[in-house]
Amino acid sequence: MVTRRTVLGGRPTLELEPAEASGRGRLLYLHGGGYVIGSPDTHVGLVGELARRAGLRATSVDYRLAPEHPFPAAVDDGLAAYRELLASGTDPRDLVMAGDSAGGGLSIATLLAAREAGLPQPAAVVVFSPWIDLTLAGGSIRSKESADPIFTEADVRAYADLYVGAGDRAHPLASPVFADLTGLPPLLVQVGANEVLLDDAVRLAGRAGADGVEVTLEVGPGLPHVFQHHYGRLDEADAALDRAARFLTAHLSAGRPDADRLEPVR
Amino acid sequence: MVTRRTVLGGRPTLELEPAEASGRGRLLYLHGGGYVIGSPDTHVGLVGELARRAGLRATSVDYRLAPEHPFPAAVDDGLAAYRELLASGTDPRDLVMAGDSAGGGLSIATLLAAREAGLPQPAAVVVFSPWIDLTLAGGSIRSKESADPIFTEADVRAYADLYVGAGDRAHPLASPVFADLTGLPPLLVQVGANEVLLDDAVRLAGRAGADGVEVTLEVGPGLPHVFQHHYGRLDEADAALDRAARFLTAHLSAGRPDADRLEPVR
Repeated sequence: MVTRRTVLGGRPTLELEPAEASGRGRLLYLHGGGYVIGSPDTHVGLVGELARRAGLRATSVDYRLAPEHPFPAAVDDGLAAYRELLASGTDPRDLVMAGDSAGGGLSIATLLAAREAGLPQPAAVVVFSPWIDLTLAGGSIRSKESADPIFTEADVRAYADLYVGAGDRAHPLASPVFADLTGLPPLLVQVGANEVLLDDAVRLAGRAGADGVEVTLEVGPGLPHVFQHHYGRLDEADAALDRAARFLTAHLSAGRPDADRLEPVR
Repeated sequence: MVTRRTVLGGRPTLELEPAEASGRGRLLYLHGGGYVIGSPDTHVGLVGELARRAGLRATSVDYRLAPEHPFPAAVDDGLAAYRELLASGTDPRDLVMAGDSAGGGLSIATLLAAREAGLPQPAAVVVFSPWIDLTLAGGSIRSKESADPIFTEADVRAYADLYVGAGDRAHPLASPVFADLTGLPPLLVQVGANEVLLDDAVRLAGRAGADGVEVTLEVGPGLPHVFQHHYGRLDEADAALDRAARFLTAHLSAGRPDADRLEPVR
């Protein structure tokens, strides 16, 4: 795995190029951490593993964090990175996106912001345990609190306080569960059953499906928040990463023939 | 495809044995039709196609229909068929289940009834556009009415009237969305985005996931109720049936090694 520090959309990024990377496919990754903590370095293992299995070069963005940089700074940085990837010549049909936890919500928000900016969508998006409702309206916020080994309701609320403060927590770019998701690319949502954010994942899938997005939801029993971190030690994590990688690459290649047929004849 | 008319659990059944059937794997299928219409004959194409792709011998049950035989007659027949399959020597690890629409809800209800009867669960279950809420509380019952080319709210309500009448529509064996689904086997739910029953599928996945069931939900944009019927003419139908077949066979074979390891040493 070759790693390289660069800048994209004005923010530091970590580029990961696995030996298995082939072709033009590219993965844009937004890490988790409640919009408050985390970095490309804390997630280098997970992102590298997804990139390796998918055979993709990955770019992990060090977007600005709260409370120093509250909403919508993270979305602005996600959009700037996405925009610069396209501007530098990346064909959106060669581009996929992924993120975990807050980075999963930020991935969806970034795609919504890209849509509003008139930019094309990428070929597919994968989110692990996405946090997409900062109002904490999902029933699992309470019903799974005792089963979740990582987060309590108070933890999640504290992150929302730091990110949005007195702002509108139901803003569609802060809480994409309240957005119209029309036009988003094929979406894979993976979540553990033992997490307070279970219902965020279920509701994202329901909302996306209702809005005409091709969506797959996978719920893994007994698994904690972003269990994919535990690849190599937990069979379910390896299997989930393999499915995520296949989902990304299937949509990269599947989009090509149709898109080519649509090229104007000169 | 060899077909044979037999009796299982006191009800007529249609057995389908595709040339591709290999090994001991067996599929128990419950057809759709609002608990009022349909039979193994109306669904012979769909069931045969799923059986062929999965390489499984299939048994499709002609369970009793409403209004002549209201709830819980269908569940009684589903359970009797399941019980006799086990009693005749079918290893539950070799057995999978599937159903569409009302037959999808009936598949879940049958597994709940089997659990209550102390019977083991099969290796996996697949449901196409399942109807699992006879109270019609899903938002898509109205929000998707204009998009659904097949059903209106009134149609679905009429089926519920005929099946449950003045009975309790929220009974967990009539509306498994209100059941505790703990202990059910791995579940694949496929649904079209253009159907009033979209939210039945989403809520089944959410409920199952919350209850610790391994569940995958797939929502296909622009697709109608039980679009899998259109295999051979609609790419999405072929792809969905292929994924369903792979899901069933993966769980048939995946369960074997662990189960063997758990055999008592004598």
